[in-house]
Amino acid sequence: MTDRPITPTLDKVQSPADLHRMSDAELRRLADELRIETISAVSETGGHLGAGLGVVELTVALHAVFDAPKDKIIWDVSHQCYPHKILTGRRDRIRTLRTKDGLSGFTKRSESPYDAFGAGHSSTSISAALGFAVARDLGGVTPEGVGDAIAVIGDGSMSAGMAFEAMNNAGHLDKRMIVILNDNEMSIAEPTGALSSYLSRLYTGEPFQDLRSAAKGAVSLLPEPFREGAKRAKDMLKHMAIGGTMFEELGFSYIGPIDGHDMDQLLSVLRTVKARADGPVLIHAITKKGKGYAPAESARDKGHATAKFDVPSGKQHKAPSNAPSYTNVFAEALMKEAAKDSKICAITAAMPDGTGLKKFMERYTSRCFDVGIAEQHAVTFSAGLAAGGMKPFCAIYSTFLQRGYDQVVHDVAIQRLPVRFAIDRAGLVGSDGATHAGSYDIAFMANLPGMVVMAAADEAELTRMVVTAAQHDEGPIAFRFPRGEGVGVEIPENAEPLEIGKGRMIVEGSGVAILSFGTRLQEVMQAVEVLNAKGITPTVADARFAKPLDRDLILDLVAKHDALITIEEGAVGGFGSHVAQLLADEGVFDHGLKFRSMVLPDTFIDHASPRDMYATASLNAEDIETKVLEVLGVASVAKRA
Amino acid sequence: MTDRPITPTLDKVQSPADLHRMSDAELRRLADELRIETISAVSETGGHLGAGLGVVELTVALHAVFDAPKDKIIWDVSHQCYPHKILTGRRDRIRTLRTKDGLSGFTKRSESPYDAFGAGHSSTSISAALGFAVARDLGGVTPEGVGDAIAVIGDGSMSAGMAFEAMNNAGHLDKRMIVILNDNEMSIAEPTGALSSYLSRLYTGEPFQDLRSAAKGAVSLLPEPFREGAKRAKDMLKHMAIGGTMFEELGFSYIGPIDGHDMDQLLSVLRTVKARADGPVLIHAITKKGKGYAPAESARDKGHATAKFDVPSGKQHKAPSNAPSYTNVFAEALMKEAAKDSKICAITAAMPDGTGLKKFMERYTSRCFDVGIAEQHAVTFSAGLAAGGMKPFCAIYSTFLQRGYDQVVHDVAIQRLPVRFAIDRAGLVGSDGATHAGSYDIAFMANLPGMVVMAAADEAELTRMVVTAAQHDEGPIAFRFPRGEGVGVEIPENAEPLEIGKGRMIVEGSGVAILSFGTRLQEVMQAVEVLNAKGITPTVADARFAKPLDRDLILDLVAKHDALITIEEGAVGGFGSHVAQLLADEGVFDHGLKFRSMVLPDTFIDHASPRDMYATASLNAEDIETKVLEVLGVASVAKRA
Repeated sequence: MTDRPITPTLDKVQSPADLHRMSDAELRRLADELRIETISAVSETGGHLGAGLGVVELTVALHAVFDAPKDKIIWDVSHQCYPHKILTGRRDRIRTLRTKDGLSGFTKRSESPYDAFGAGHSSTSISAALGFAVARDLGGVTPEGVGDAIAVIGDGSMSAGMAFEAMNNAGHLDKRMIVILNDNEMSIAEPTGALSSYLSRLYTGEPFQDLRSAAKGAVSLLPEPFREGAKRAKDMLKHMAIGGTMFEELGFSYIGPIDGHDMDQLLSVLRTVKARADGPVLIHAITKKGKGYAPAESARDKGHATAKFDVPSGKQHKAPSNAPSYTNVFAEALMKEAAKDSKICAITAAMPDGTGLKKFMERYTSRCFDVGIAEQHAVTFSAGLAAGGMKPFCAIYSTFLQRGYDQVVHDVAIQRLPVRFAIDRAGLVGSDGATHAGSYDIAFMANLPGMVVMAAADEAELTRMVVTAAQHDEGPIAFRFPRGEGVGVEIPENAEPLEIGKGRMIVEGSGVAILSFGTRLQEVMQAVEVLNAKGITPTVADARFAKPLDRDLILDLVAKHDALITIEEGAVGGFGSHVAQLLADEGVFDHGLKFRSMVLPDTFIDHASPRDMYATASLNAEDIETKVLEVLGVASVAKRA
Repeated sequence: MTDRPITPTLDKVQSPADLHRMSDAELRRLADELRIETISAVSETGGHLGAGLGVVELTVALHAVFDAPKDKIIWDVSHQCYPHKILTGRRDRIRTLRTKDGLSGFTKRSESPYDAFGAGHSSTSISAALGFAVARDLGGVTPEGVGDAIAVIGDGSMSAGMAFEAMNNAGHLDKRMIVILNDNEMSIAEPTGALSSYLSRLYTGEPFQDLRSAAKGAVSLLPEPFREGAKRAKDMLKHMAIGGTMFEELGFSYIGPIDGHDMDQLLSVLRTVKARADGPVLIHAITKKGKGYAPAESARDKGHATAKFDVPSGKQHKAPSNAPSYTNVFAEALMKEAAKDSKICAITAAMPDGTGLKKFMERYTSRCFDVGIAEQHAVTFSAGLAAGGMKPFCAIYSTFLQRGYDQVVHDVAIQRLPVRFAIDRAGLVGSDGATHAGSYDIAFMANLPGMVVMAAADEAELTRMVVTAAQHDEGPIAFRFPRGEGVGVEIPENAEPLEIGKGRMIVEGSGVAILSFGTRLQEVMQAVEVLNAKGITPTVADARFAKPLDRDLILDLVAKHDALITIEEGAVGGFGSHVAQLLADEGVFDHGLKFRSMVLPDTFIDHASPRDMYATASLNAEDIETKVLEVLGVASVAKRA
């Protein structure tokens, strides 16, 4: 444990109400201490650092001016919520962040009444805030009451269509609500898109000739007594520029840009808005991701997400890795294919690092597209590329692909366009918890006609699946792989493509057959080792494909065994359900088959290590062993971890 | 058949290339004849009329100036594509629109190389066009080649976030591409949202003082020789206004507004853009939905969708209905609940008519929200309302709910917020075809922890499900129901809520049990009648819930029968898969059970009548009878229709 920082002002805070009694000078001190405490906590836990440091002053100012939990402060994505958690009664648990039974790394309604709305994915905050604002005006009743609704949203999140939909509706409904645009010129990666350029122009451009009238225009939208405050806010601008006409055109009163680290500005603007706003207001605050901690400020990702680290140096403590990550294996394999085939291109939705495409982007710049946080567009843009004769790899995490589901159905599957979906972070992902689990993609992809759905059992398999996808021009194809390191198997130098719809036999045994789809295969093999010692010799096969199923393999397995167990890293409705449908159609159940389908349980599993989460899900080696023994009618003697 | 119109100019058109040889005067005549032909065709087939009439001149101008199929004309939603189909070699089949084996009512790549990109749902065209534009510049190879990419998108579609995502990316990539904003101030319903107001201001506002400089600003974005054309376009404006700054801020050159029914303007602008554009250009064309056909122009929905009709009078030929539509039953039941409970509110995404909420909106104006074409926002806005103490009914068609799937997972299910999902158009929908089929909602909703999923077997059941949902405050709940008329059963005056997770016995029989989820129950009962005459007496039960399953009912059925058949109007992964998972977990298959799960087949089913589509899907009474006989080992004697 590192030395705890000295924080006399912060020590006085039991709840946000304590901030209401502080002077502005005390609030400034509080912000400084809150920053140090946040750095100290994350140095022990790892997690999202840069975003929280960027909103320290904003967090203090919001809680000083507004009255949570009656007023609803809604953090978009909410990976910037650590300072908020420290101020809202959770300081004593802040060093349990993202660990089993500890605090969530995101806001979570079940964790605290101060977490008005949970998040994890971006760009939902304005919709939620509008919901609260309308509920308030309609007399909605909640235990804490419903007061002001304040969404804090980053410029990266603002590029997602959903934020635009919400602005469009909010401007129309004209309810009192507040959007704080936390503009740090960053999403997780560098900013992309025309909106980003627009926002930059709002505060870096040379003063325009019509600055004065534009500013007047902005102020004139506000009710009379408010104008004074807005004018004061404008006087405090560091960078003068024309008003945010795009936001005004959408019906918002625009205030800014203001310095999001200047507590005086923040307090003044927020107090004025609180006193006078009678419609939707957008406050444009310029902040620095990683602010106040040199190692974060100087990092390329501004300390976006970090392992545990040494505070003075910022050096991260990372366990040495034994094998390359699946992400890197995918990226390397794709680069290899791209070197051979100039039609191969890659698409990411604001995750060039997370998807491993960063290197691809550097090497094949013209063939790599970061479309911003815009999964819907990413999928249909990929479909357009495919229709135009390219071979697009659309690399999106399982959990984020949910954002583009309709586009997968319509623009890809119905049209049979050969888009290749690289579905990273499939299955349970660990410390990011339930919001980032990739639980549903097998189910929602495999029931689409014409879709090919693969899951890699190890990194060599993943390499072959990339090659398979590259060569599959007949229609859409998807392959899923988990977060984290591979198994350490050798990666083939010249990987052969797989035959579509063909699995592989791993071990031929007897009695019970285990058919695995994805990386649970390693757990299956561990279970088999233990079972072998007991004289039980299961057959093991790797399905490789959830669609099309390897009918011959499956019917052969059930012909030769009394029991069939399927296992996958996904919810019911996926691989096991497709196998069950085949078995039912074929009449296999008519005369008896001990069939079990091991899937994720019917519950959202809280953050913990992936291994612990899979223990909760009963999908580890011990659970497989238990299931085999149960099916064979042998009393389980397995000890649970 | 009505008399065919006289169309000498149109008769000369075999393909769009013929338009390249026509004079502007001939093109004007062609447009007039194309309009008459469209009206005549739709009077015989029914279908989408108003949108097509609004783009007759635009269709002619696009095909005259551009070179399809090499140039890609992408119709957003594509219900306005009938004139395009007439000009692109399909005039001889235009009177088969939306009928079995006839032309699709939407663009469809498999139907014609002139349909560059299929559609059905809104707001995908800019993404697709950008994909083509990028593919072209990267050397993508297709049989027709890849030239210009032109998206034609309505103002309603522009309100969806996806369109914004695509504009944001297109402005950034700065590729030559063309977006034609077809602004008729309509989505299907009246326009809503701040963007709509903004667009109106672009052409109805008083001239602004800085008009001249703003216009200059727009033109200065274009390369030098292009300015002349743009200026000419501007000279032709009917309503002068400031330039489309929002679009310019997103990196597009804005041209307009222009009169979308003035062929000279259209040709001039398109020719100039074709000759000179070197980045993304947005042409803002003002059109009238239903243009040139008085009955459409004067209708509230501008002839959006129509039955077959009499051309002179516009009177629609509608079959008398025997029972109220499910949509109306839902809407009436909801109004009744809203009268009793002021917390009940309703949300639609641009479908107040389609969802039946129009009357609700009139009666409870402050509690009904049309958020525009914005399903993502609709879901999270509903979640915010629920978090704020309201009881939101979020009414979205099954197929459109795919657009808000991630929001259902995150903002509703993970947070256990009591949003009520009214899922209309569940199952196969008829003449709108595969793009509008509601095939996946059971699967993608029922695997979400804490979600309650119901399907109504008839209109009385639907009424009870509305009441059940209204009273269910513990978490999210969804109920699905089909397009079309109910069965004609009596609707209970004071409907009782259902017990969550409890099905009902319909007929107690023996041998085989049929467990139905949804309105296939009527087909089941027809099949049972035929089977009874053969001495076969199946048991029939209505599951009501796909989640939670009625475990007791299901285990009782399998205990008392040799066979269990489930049936649903959805794809594999849904109700039948959940039943199979239960049976497997309970070890029911171990000793034999003739289990069959009747689901939608693994294919996208083309438009036809719902009955014909269900015949293709093998889910009609005859198919159920056949399945029962097959399971019982009795040779089928059923005649197929």
